[in-house]
Amino acid sequence: MNFIRKIVKPSSKGEDEGFYNDMRELLEFYPKKIEYYDMAFTHRSLKKVDKDGEPFNYERLEFLGDAMLGSVIASYLYKKVPKGTEGYLTQMRSKIVSREHLNELGKDLNLIKFVKSNISQDNVGDNIHGNIFEALIGAIYLDKGYNYCKKFIYEKVITPYVDIPKLEGKITSYKGLIIEWCQKQKKKYHIETYEDTGNEPIKHFSVRISIDGEQIAKGRATSKKKAEEQASKRVYFSFQKQIENS
Amino acid sequence: MNFIRKIVKPSSKGEDEGFYNDMRELLEFYPKKIEYYDMAFTHRSLKKVDKDGEPFNYERLEFLGDAMLGSVIASYLYKKVPKGTEGYLTQMRSKIVSREHLNELGKDLNLIKFVKSNISQDNVGDNIHGNIFEALIGAIYLDKGYNYCKKFIYEKVITPYVDIPKLEGKITSYKGLIIEWCQKQKKKYHIETYEDTGNEPIKHFSVRISIDGEQIAKGRATSKKKAEEQASKRVYFSFQKQIENS
Repeated sequence: MNFIRKIVKPSSKGEDEGFYNDMRELLEFYPKKIEYYDMAFTHRSLKKVDKDGEPFNYERLEFLGDAMLGSVIASYLYKKVPKGTEGYLTQMRSKIVSREHLNELGKDLNLIKFVKSNISQDNVGDNIHGNIFEALIGAIYLDKGYNYCKKFIYEKVITPYVDIPKLEGKITSYKGLIIEWCQKQKKKYHIETYEDTGNEPIKHFSVRISIDGEQIAKGRATSKKKAEEQASKRVYFSFQKQIENS
Repeated sequence: MNFIRKIVKPSSKGEDEGFYNDMRELLEFYPKKIEYYDMAFTHRSLKKVDKDGEPFNYERLEFLGDAMLGSVIASYLYKKVPKGTEGYLTQMRSKIVSREHLNELGKDLNLIKFVKSNISQDNVGDNIHGNIFEALIGAIYLDKGYNYCKKFIYEKVITPYVDIPKLEGKITSYKGLIIEWCQKQKKKYHIETYEDTGNEPIKHFSVRISIDGEQIAKGRATSKKKAEEQASKRVYFSFQKQIENS
């Protein structure tokens, strides 16, 4: 409940400025029309309407953001995987934009803290994370156009999350792969995982991986498994040539 | 069979220039990289490969074009129908980008005449019209970016084809509506439909509609029904206020 801004009276000037600054930090550009972002984080339970009496909430923006995300991911995959057939590209895209994947993304960006709702987080369901992530993309499109939208998706989705070998199922677990490689190579593997939430509203975990006593990579995410995979993937990239030739 | 360019040897200089000019005319801009358009009209039956040995045909472009079309239509509907809920917008978009609708579009643009294939038109199936239309959109995106793509979709899809009241099912037939209105208003209705293919490879029909002896609108399309609807829709817009108030 404490994750959701419960606004029952009009926001004061200070709150507006706070929201603008939060958005600027999240988006890494200056928003032009802050109303779009306000809409992207307004849940229908507030029953808010705009000046024309139309519902003011994120549901329509979700539709728009979903379409923008689909086209940006399509263009990324088209260029990234020149050998991929139409069927392959379609399947990869479905995995990237799956509800589950989008919920993870929304959670990692901690978007829920901006949501204005009249119901508690426990009652809005898990899909709200992915839904507001899509709505945010829709808002960026309306505010700044396709290219900003594309840049945001590259920075927040493609670079940190899109991992073709893993999506293809060639690598199911980086952690497993690293452990197996260390065993074969008679290297000493050590992993340390601990809760590291700090002041954040969502639980976080940190991970350190050492090989032969030397720390190789760290990771931090909203679940133990994700943090471990993140750190293991970094180890993988540090030793990629050796692993592939082993 | 005569609709499909059957190319078994490399194109001569003259053929290349002809294709470039055809594309310029169709697209209403100067293509930068003609290879993309060449790919958009190359059927896999030619078994063509590019310099890296990858299949050179329109199938991957179809995936890309489909995604671009989806996002442009989504953004159009979002802005055009501010009262439309997420469910409404999704449903309207599905109708606009339905396979049937895209096949019609591809046929009306007569794109089949540019297709290079080793099999006859009878054997490629009806979906080829929609598929190459999508592939062409993919090619425009790669060649000129999102905004050209959007402009093309507005000119070739949205302006001539997207008819919200009809898609909503509020108007099922403009022809029926006009006839009924004329009967109520005791106006003399006359419709004249005739085959008008000319030199084109696909059969066309023309229509003229007169009311009280005065010609109000004409239409021309690839089926009798479509030509009649087109002309009737024009009559509808000429008398819209009177019809709505009747």
